[in-house]
Amino acid sequence: MTDTLESRIRHTIDTKTKPLGALGRIEELAAQIARIQGTTAPVMSSCTLTIFAADHGIAHAGVSAFPQVVTGQMVLNFLAGGAAANVFAKVNGVALQVVDAGVAGLPIVHPALIDRRIAPGTGNFLEGPAMTAQQAQMALEHGAQIARDAAGEALAFGEMGIANTATAAALGHKLTGLPIADLVGRGTGLDDAGLANKRAILERAAARTGDLTPEQAMAEYGGFEIVMMAGAMIETARARRIVIVDGFIATAAALLATKLAPETRAAMVFAHQSHEAGHRALLAVLEAAPLLSLGMRLGEGTGALLAWPLLRAAAAMMTDMASFESAGVSNRD
Amino acid sequence: MTDTLESRIRHTIDTKTKPLGALGRIEELAAQIARIQGTTAPVMSSCTLTIFAADHGIAHAGVSAFPQVVTGQMVLNFLAGGAAANVFAKVNGVALQVVDAGVAGLPIVHPALIDRRIAPGTGNFLEGPAMTAQQAQMALEHGAQIARDAAGEALAFGEMGIANTATAAALGHKLTGLPIADLVGRGTGLDDAGLANKRAILERAAARTGDLTPEQAMAEYGGFEIVMMAGAMIETARARRIVIVDGFIATAAALLATKLAPETRAAMVFAHQSHEAGHRALLAVLEAAPLLSLGMRLGEGTGALLAWPLLRAAAAMMTDMASFESAGVSNRD
Repeated sequence: MTDTLESRIRHTIDTKTKPLGALGRIEELAAQIARIQGTTAPVMSSCTLTIFAADHGIAHAGVSAFPQVVTGQMVLNFLAGGAAANVFAKVNGVALQVVDAGVAGLPIVHPALIDRRIAPGTGNFLEGPAMTAQQAQMALEHGAQIARDAAGEALAFGEMGIANTATAAALGHKLTGLPIADLVGRGTGLDDAGLANKRAILERAAARTGDLTPEQAMAEYGGFEIVMMAGAMIETARARRIVIVDGFIATAAALLATKLAPETRAAMVFAHQSHEAGHRALLAVLEAAPLLSLGMRLGEGTGALLAWPLLRAAAAMMTDMASFESAGVSNRD
Repeated sequence: MTDTLESRIRHTIDTKTKPLGALGRIEELAAQIARIQGTTAPVMSSCTLTIFAADHGIAHAGVSAFPQVVTGQMVLNFLAGGAAANVFAKVNGVALQVVDAGVAGLPIVHPALIDRRIAPGTGNFLEGPAMTAQQAQMALEHGAQIARDAAGEALAFGEMGIANTATAAALGHKLTGLPIADLVGRGTGLDDAGLANKRAILERAAARTGDLTPEQAMAEYGGFEIVMMAGAMIETARARRIVIVDGFIATAAALLATKLAPETRAAMVFAHQSHEAGHRALLAVLEAAPLLSLGMRLGEGTGALLAWPLLRAAAAMMTDMASFESAGVSNRD
């Protein structure tokens, strides 16, 4: 037992010049990173955030405070560097890339955009499947390839898609059996009437099908960006890299990823507790406690970006901090 | 009203490309920074952490799990770059300096150490005053000068001092009238018997005096590092710079600073909710909610260092993020 990786990680942390456990969750995070990398000297030097954008047929049912055209407009905003995600990425030294996973309308043409459009938006899952099984499979595969191509010991994932809190709620419901009511929130800013309407629509949409496998659920209720993100997460974990999970939508993708590939969970770091209702419920299923709780509800990977410095600090603690012995500091009596 | 700084700050934040309020506490932080700097285009480009180290006569009463010699040893560890604070400072690009405010034993000689020793440790406040009124005044003045000499739009403050959770509890009690029991915790790792003993000792020490002014309380029960930190905080706020307050000890200093100069409060950002009992009680008095809650209880400014990237992100949001208009993004219906 004394020479397992786990015991070596524990020993490394416990002999650093600090009282036992005094760095709290930074110590847990350091242990997780070390475990994934299989070393007591982990490295966290770079991170890429991929923002997956797509549109949702359910938007036509009136479940969002913003018009669908905003998805494409925000893609252009990401490409121009003006969104919150761009600002946070720059401040924290994270590379940012944007994927069109299926934005409505004509394709966006921009040299920096990664075009993996499955279709111009999903079907309206109130009336029929959001996508075909083949489209879902293609989204998973595109996601995996995007992860393989992205640089960094950690990959962060964000999203943009008008109405995708509705999609995440419906998909989350089918994957967990939790009541729709526990998973529906105000999204980008619905009022009370809008919230009640969104909930009623999602109840009807959920009643359209019975019990589903994860594969069926992602095709019936998924969003292209959510399924693609799940594919990227699975591949990231397979490569023994850290998956930084952002807010509610990304957590729905993380849940899907763990249903398809349970071993993905061990590589996941949950960044931020969103104010969107439903996030807490999905986190409980995943037994996950986010690092940050800043009252944000924006998506785009903003929470993941703010958590990245904590991963860097945790890894640096393992490699750069002195031990009681090396520093000549007396340990407790 | 429409052209006040406050309304211009609000307008700047609310027209950024995001749903209203969707960046939660980052928006509040941005507004605070903008308010302190008196502009809608605030700058957060650099930060200095000052670690104030001192010893405490109350350590001789047996209130800490670590021997007093550790204070000086940790000062050498800071100077050698091996402590958690050094590691976090390096990762987050924060300058770090160490002040000997009154470490026990012979003076530490090191070219990088800032020597502002008031005395080799305070007196044991179980038996008499920790310091004279003149010493307290000198500590405040040294702190102010150190703040004037430190670079950055924000200054962070940390501490090292064996037994200083006992000092912070006694001082906090005298400044607020809160029961000692609400302010005493395990410090660096006392067991149940040690905790009961610490509490009993502090009850006796508190009973030695009656009601005190803040000036009297800091001399009777203060630590040199705590009083010096309070002086630095007051001066930082006077210069319209942000004060990043670390954990329990730094919050006791922040409380003292607000008692001596109430206007200091507006410049304070509370970094981290410590696991040390007593921190929550002092934060409630200050009506403060820390940005982070990572289960840490180390001091040294570690919480402040991890919060610094959030201040940078908040300021950058004000200056670098696009508005709906500038980005051509449709606002909500």
